[in-house]
Amino acid sequence: MKYRIDLSYDGTNYGGWAIQPNQTTIQELVQQALTTALRCPIAITGSGRTDAGVHARHQVAHFTFLDPLDPSPLTYSLNGILPRDIRIQSITPVSDDFHARFSVKKKIYHYHCTTSQSPFHFRTSYFLHASPDIDRLQEALPLFLGTRDFSAFASSGCGSKNPVKTLYRLEFFPEEQGFRLEFEGDGFLYKMVRNITGTLLDIALGKRSAEEIPIIFASRKRTLAGKTAPAKGLFLHKVEYSN
Amino acid sequence: MKYRIDLSYDGTNYGGWAIQPNQTTIQELVQQALTTALRCPIAITGSGRTDAGVHARHQVAHFTFLDPLDPSPLTYSLNGILPRDIRIQSITPVSDDFHARFSVKKKIYHYHCTTSQSPFHFRTSYFLHASPDIDRLQEALPLFLGTRDFSAFASSGCGSKNPVKTLYRLEFFPEEQGFRLEFEGDGFLYKMVRNITGTLLDIALGKRSAEEIPIIFASRKRTLAGKTAPAKGLFLHKVEYSN
Repeated sequence: MKYRIDLSYDGTNYGGWAIQPNQTTIQELVQQALTTALRCPIAITGSGRTDAGVHARHQVAHFTFLDPLDPSPLTYSLNGILPRDIRIQSITPVSDDFHARFSVKKKIYHYHCTTSQSPFHFRTSYFLHASPDIDRLQEALPLFLGTRDFSAFASSGCGSKNPVKTLYRLEFFPEEQGFRLEFEGDGFLYKMVRNITGTLLDIALGKRSAEEIPIIFASRKRTLAGKTAPAKGLFLHKVEYSN
Repeated sequence: MKYRIDLSYDGTNYGGWAIQPNQTTIQELVQQALTTALRCPIAITGSGRTDAGVHARHQVAHFTFLDPLDPSPLTYSLNGILPRDIRIQSITPVSDDFHARFSVKKKIYHYHCTTSQSPFHFRTSYFLHASPDIDRLQEALPLFLGTRDFSAFASSGCGSKNPVKTLYRLEFFPEEQGFRLEFEGDGFLYKMVRNITGTLLDIALGKRSAEEIPIIFASRKRTLAGKTAPAKGLFLHKVEYSN
């Protein structure tokens, strides 16, 4: 039987989602916890990777297990085994054609910036030393929307074959001590959200103008776009499936 | 000259505000940072203590220094010296009659409870395993308001000579994954907010009825009230002064 796991994590202390040598990763810890709880080696497949230091309010994975499971006590056990910064929200039986990665319809990412120092948000937001010009930032947002070749905003090491993605929504929301950017799309290239954010922050801080954006897109050159914004401000906010 | 410090901290890793042996405290670290930055031993006086594990969105302290200071570079230096979970918000010259403790007019505390497990709030909120009855909780709130002898809600070790305090406001606010209680008063006895919260949670979880509250007040006996709610959910939210 196939099971879906909905979970959340603070990525600060981890080498990202995907298992890799010499790093503690979220996938690895969740697999180990499942293996302990179910007394049987379990492999999980996530909706996609998150990089070292990136957080998830909502990440989805799946695994298969021969016997029927009682989701509620298993969730409770896993949360007992896992560290406090990784929390299983639910485990749900799903049909065999569900695939945590290939069935994804939409993903929503949030990027959080703060403009004042806070002892509560230093793990989960990017502190801006200078004051951003929010009007300039807002004006640039529509330039990223739609179905486009996002090559200029993909970092090297991107495994995606198709650089054309659709960004449905890119919105600014003020927060108590800063703001967040919300990205909603059908898929994202490697570090795409952080590279767009870095470029937008350049515009907001007067380091470049919004007129450059179409030129950057057309160039397909990563070197023309802004710096990659730090991992700590980025949240995988929601993963949506068709059914 | 006298200077006022406005600061905030995540209390998770500290033995509270006040200096004490064998514990790292916030007062101690701020004094050490000031001593390093100003190259002269500095003692600070806070608006009041916060216990081990209690947080402050806004705490106030004062210190005296013979020479005039430039507040902005000093703030910057202190934040460079201090750990990331203690942040100086501002340093302001004040008149000689300002006293961080004796000039306090009002204090506001918030207590945060969550009803779902979160990797982002486990340091700063109390997770309730059972579902609280919010109507029952709200009905009990007015029973704590006004000028009263709060002895039954003061833990032993309370240094206050006068157990009569005025609670101006005690309000419930829903939050994304739980709720907070806001306490506004002219002063608070030792662990008073946490003891009132523990009693209110007993009521919300059906363990006792609101009718007991007047009896608990009249008894002046700590043993009749509820358990002390955990430190992690408590924030000193704001300290207000007359001028």
